[in-house]
Amino acid sequence: MKIAIIGSGALGLYYGAMLQRSGHEVHFLLRRDYEAITSNGLTVHSVNGDFCLPVVSGHRTPDTIGPVELVIVGLKTFANNHLYDLVSPLVATETQILTLQNGLGNEELLAELFGAERILGGVAFLCSNRGESGHVHHLGGGRIIIGEYEQRDNVRLVQIVSAFSSAGIECKATGDLKKARWEKLVWNIPFNGLCALLQQSVDKLLKVNGCRKLVRDLMVEVIAAANTQDLSQVIPEAYADEMLEFSDGMGEYKPSMQIDREEGRTLEIEAILRVPLGYGRQHGVDMLRTEMLAVLLEQGFAAGPF
Amino acid sequence: MKIAIIGSGALGLYYGAMLQRSGHEVHFLLRRDYEAITSNGLTVHSVNGDFCLPVVSGHRTPDTIGPVELVIVGLKTFANNHLYDLVSPLVATETQILTLQNGLGNEELLAELFGAERILGGVAFLCSNRGESGHVHHLGGGRIIIGEYEQRDNVRLVQIVSAFSSAGIECKATGDLKKARWEKLVWNIPFNGLCALLQQSVDKLLKVNGCRKLVRDLMVEVIAAANTQDLSQVIPEAYADEMLEFSDGMGEYKPSMQIDREEGRTLEIEAILRVPLGYGRQHGVDMLRTEMLAVLLEQGFAAGPF
Repeated sequence: MKIAIIGSGALGLYYGAMLQRSGHEVHFLLRRDYEAITSNGLTVHSVNGDFCLPVVSGHRTPDTIGPVELVIVGLKTFANNHLYDLVSPLVATETQILTLQNGLGNEELLAELFGAERILGGVAFLCSNRGESGHVHHLGGGRIIIGEYEQRDNVRLVQIVSAFSSAGIECKATGDLKKARWEKLVWNIPFNGLCALLQQSVDKLLKVNGCRKLVRDLMVEVIAAANTQDLSQVIPEAYADEMLEFSDGMGEYKPSMQIDREEGRTLEIEAILRVPLGYGRQHGVDMLRTEMLAVLLEQGFAAGPF
Repeated sequence: MKIAIIGSGALGLYYGAMLQRSGHEVHFLLRRDYEAITSNGLTVHSVNGDFCLPVVSGHRTPDTIGPVELVIVGLKTFANNHLYDLVSPLVATETQILTLQNGLGNEELLAELFGAERILGGVAFLCSNRGESGHVHHLGGGRIIIGEYEQRDNVRLVQIVSAFSSAGIECKATGDLKKARWEKLVWNIPFNGLCALLQQSVDKLLKVNGCRKLVRDLMVEVIAAANTQDLSQVIPEAYADEMLEFSDGMGEYKPSMQIDREEGRTLEIEAILRVPLGYGRQHGVDMLRTEMLAVLLEQGFAAGPF
């Protein structure tokens, strides 16, 4: 398959490298790492074993990539205003677009720009970060759940799942992408928000009872909002406890928004908090704590680096 | 009147100096400023005109002060565990104790330690800070509202109010100290909490709509809790808007908790947030946003300086 990776951060580089290693023709749109990767290739340092791709097709603009069969979007959502320009040159009649971005609203935007019929979304459970130029570190996880934005015949979904699976990436298809997205938000809203606000890793939040309770209260708010969104199944409140227990095993993990703040980037407040808040409100659910968390992040951010 | 000032910070030094200037025998318990003040006196730089007290009675321990007619407590509330040792040597049969400390719970503690009949409380609207040793800066305000912890005959209340008034301090007696304290909390909870958490001054919080609304939402929560506390009069919701308008005139003002955080001191979370939360809960009021603010401050603080 001819695949383009748009947004070659830690996630894009890792999945792209895995797909190329398994035989696909992968093209990376690169900025920071262009020189390093096109000269010396891409090295993946992985818990599952390191590997190096000596020859990688790197591009400075999407025009030199041209139409592809699959676009994988890994762009930070605050850069979504560039999506049209970055993806247009890649799209032909049969092109599928899979967004693995954070939060809500990304499939909707892509559907508006390129037509709903070619849009898929995925939720990635990946722990990776970029090292020096040309290197990416895979620290754990990698599992993806993929679904169609508008359900159709599943043929293309099966094909893409199979491409990921044969590349060694645990990948599952879902008929309810919305549920997968909201389930991820149950984790993402409290941890991305609080870790970024307080600049503390996951374990620090969980070890103090008051803060652990706040995390759970936020999770329960997200679950309540999720359950008004016409999901195929209700998310039980017990899911919050499962997530807490799961998170206890994560140690000093820093969610992406905390790293974004540390590195002086814009925070994904819109996709991870504001859009879900809007969907909640549309269905009559007030998410008081989530709203307060969003305001505090916006307020801190509006003043520049905290 | 023989007066002892316990907690000679910006508030204690300012009111003590004003009282001494008007002819009272004032004794200051000093730590940081002991050498400077006992050698060179105390200088007040005030918006109402500077003045200097060349001879000031400074003490390192309360024992050298001995019994007084009035103890004024200006201690930071997180040092309340020292109150018994600091105040005991000053107390004789007729001694009155006036706490001008922040938040709730201080009169209760003093009543328990020294008997309810001698306890008065006051709410101070003072903007002052300490400069170099031996100097205090009075930037504005100074008004005090004083009330008895347990209402009695008002004689001592009138006497103390009159001492403050003749010292040039705007001072009013109230028959409902609890109401005065809760009214001050309507301002103190949002502004002390948010300014300390975000390290932004009052004007910065007010100029962004989302944060201005959060400030108001917090105020309305505090008003709702206050109105379950058996006050002599209901505090109307419009009080929140009055406070917002009043705060618009404060400019780059930093509340004490923000300064405490900047200077690496403990934060008065207990007196300003936790005790009010407890009183609210006792009367069936959940203050969700105030609770979240308290948790965030505690969590940030638990990890040491943010």
